[in-house]
Amino acid sequence: MVIDNDKTLKIDPWGTIDIKDYSELFELFGIEPIDNVLEKITKPNRYLRRRIIFGHRELSKIIDAIEKNEEYAVMSGIKPTGALHLGSKMTAEEIIYFQSLSRKSKVFYAIADIEAYCDNGLPLDQTSEISVNNLADILALGLDPSRAYVYKQSEEIRVMNFALIFSRKVTKNTIEAIYGERPLGLYFSALVQAGDILLPQHADFDGPKPVLVPVGADQDPHIRLTRDIARKYSNEFKFILPSSIYHKLTRSLTGDFKMSKRDPMSLLTLEDSPEMAKKKVLNALTGGRETTTLQKKLGGEPEKCVAYELCLYHFCENDEKVKQIYQECIKGERICGDCKVEIAEIVANFLKVHQMKKSRLIETSRKLLDKK
Amino acid sequence: MVIDNDKTLKIDPWGTIDIKDYSELFELFGIEPIDNVLEKITKPNRYLRRRIIFGHRELSKIIDAIEKNEEYAVMSGIKPTGALHLGSKMTAEEIIYFQSLSRKSKVFYAIADIEAYCDNGLPLDQTSEISVNNLADILALGLDPSRAYVYKQSEEIRVMNFALIFSRKVTKNTIEAIYGERPLGLYFSALVQAGDILLPQHADFDGPKPVLVPVGADQDPHIRLTRDIARKYSNEFKFILPSSIYHKLTRSLTGDFKMSKRDPMSLLTLEDSPEMAKKKVLNALTGGRETTTLQKKLGGEPEKCVAYELCLYHFCENDEKVKQIYQECIKGERICGDCKVEIAEIVANFLKVHQMKKSRLIETSRKLLDKK
Repeated sequence: MVIDNDKTLKIDPWGTIDIKDYSELFELFGIEPIDNVLEKITKPNRYLRRRIIFGHRELSKIIDAIEKNEEYAVMSGIKPTGALHLGSKMTAEEIIYFQSLSRKSKVFYAIADIEAYCDNGLPLDQTSEISVNNLADILALGLDPSRAYVYKQSEEIRVMNFALIFSRKVTKNTIEAIYGERPLGLYFSALVQAGDILLPQHADFDGPKPVLVPVGADQDPHIRLTRDIARKYSNEFKFILPSSIYHKLTRSLTGDFKMSKRDPMSLLTLEDSPEMAKKKVLNALTGGRETTTLQKKLGGEPEKCVAYELCLYHFCENDEKVKQIYQECIKGERICGDCKVEIAEIVANFLKVHQMKKSRLIETSRKLLDKK
Repeated sequence: MVIDNDKTLKIDPWGTIDIKDYSELFELFGIEPIDNVLEKITKPNRYLRRRIIFGHRELSKIIDAIEKNEEYAVMSGIKPTGALHLGSKMTAEEIIYFQSLSRKSKVFYAIADIEAYCDNGLPLDQTSEISVNNLADILALGLDPSRAYVYKQSEEIRVMNFALIFSRKVTKNTIEAIYGERPLGLYFSALVQAGDILLPQHADFDGPKPVLVPVGADQDPHIRLTRDIARKYSNEFKFILPSSIYHKLTRSLTGDFKMSKRDPMSLLTLEDSPEMAKKKVLNALTGGRETTTLQKKLGGEPEKCVAYELCLYHFCENDEKVKQIYQECIKGERICGDCKVEIAEIVANFLKVHQMKKSRLIETSRKLLDKK
């Protein structure tokens, strides 16, 4: 996301991301601040409480469905190219959370194996194994498989049919206004994503219903395109415009928004051994001052600190604990070395427990993916 | 197809067709005259003998496969919007003929029901019934179902996956050079058609093999696009560039190349009752002179005559009979009224026999389509 001087905000789901100010999204694209609806949610999760989920479109449709005990869906997906990283963990936890709020919820989870083939050259038998692994992670995070429809892009013709149909009413002008001038292939992929987001409203899944799509702030173009399509086909398919929530983007351990798989030490994944994860955290960027003396005097800068972000976003459920770390840091009572040892321990413990749970869910995952 | 003064030939599969000179195709697009390979075909069918199939690309690949007793495929398809008309009959007879030349042949037949939905607003349950009907016609024309794979677009994900993959390497420049400036939806449909044509070479169907696509002269852009794609993905999928044959276009009964479903009297279909067909033929455009006297003096113009075209292209297997009609016509020995009565009888008889065969094949057709 790049903010130009002329106040046109370019959000680019396929490009480099440089988030300067999430609040611009409110102004320019009509995303609403999450605060507007937060009081209506009885037990907000970590991401909501801490405003890591900072914005939404029509989340009230989902809240209403929960209140009225009506059906709704929560939709997300993954490109199966390797171990699950923290961004995918965040999305997974969001769908799991919204699945848990009602027995009338259903999760739809797309595994974009054709994209993985096109973008990363991974053949389907290889992505098939990666998918089993990724889904086992998501099950270990708490997904209820009895109310989930998990599918591979290479096997779900209804999504492709939607994409082909939608291509007839999406003009080049519309798609260029949303994505900029792009190769055809990316336009086609965008239409397939719209098909994914609207699949929960397919007649085979009992037709129109509210659908929530949790995304990173950079993914809003897909939501806008899909809402535009849902509007254009509202007579034909009776689509309800999908709702969305927006979370802040996770930085790499070096503090960049651009993740690079070429530098594995800069990325934490759910498949890292607890020992490896510790090492990575100990190497992470902090918000520390140049010297210990200076840090004790001025305090640290937790906003800049990736180790603190790991707590705040990902691994520390206890709000009081996070506040304590923050306070101690800014008061200069916390020195980065010690702090990172503590946080590395939290991360390593999480992974230890998670990986144990996951090992028992590999077969469940395989069955869920093989059932078609 | 429009021939501009500047010798750029615009062939347009989606537009109005005005064929001025098929031989331009040889010059401009490298389509070869059928005569080049005709002597290698032992028993040419009606279309080949009469040069209704006038051109080809690499038909020798198919002839070689037949000679060497190697596998090859013949590929075509239909948009299931109503009764089979003479253009589809022609394509069907071509695939049936090339299927019959070897026991190593396999026919692939695509039923473009999503296109019928997009273009004609026909829902899938309706096109499903139309498809049963269309396929029964093709079986009655002689398709051997034991060596045919018939599929609906809405059910064949491998084609869609190909289309999505191909979209990554087809540039806007390439596709605009072939089709001109077009809406996105038509570009995607073109990629899906490329997927159809390359499906016989999918690993699930034993991979690379020669494939023959019989098309009307206006459909060459699809062949060029597909050959371009096959070339681009030759490393990845080992595609053999598909071969094609080109037939002249059938005119409506009023003599136009543009068929209009809004005027049912102008179109002969395989579902017309023999009586209705007779009426239509009797109303067809002829190459007759203004008066009988003039016709006896100057002779008729069979090249202009749709009734003669019905014999030559579609309903008269006997070459001598066709020659006789032609000779009698140009010598002024044949008067249009009588001639049309004779040809109407030939057409009505064909339909009577055809429809009887077909009635016994409806259930075979249904099973063939339902097996998935």
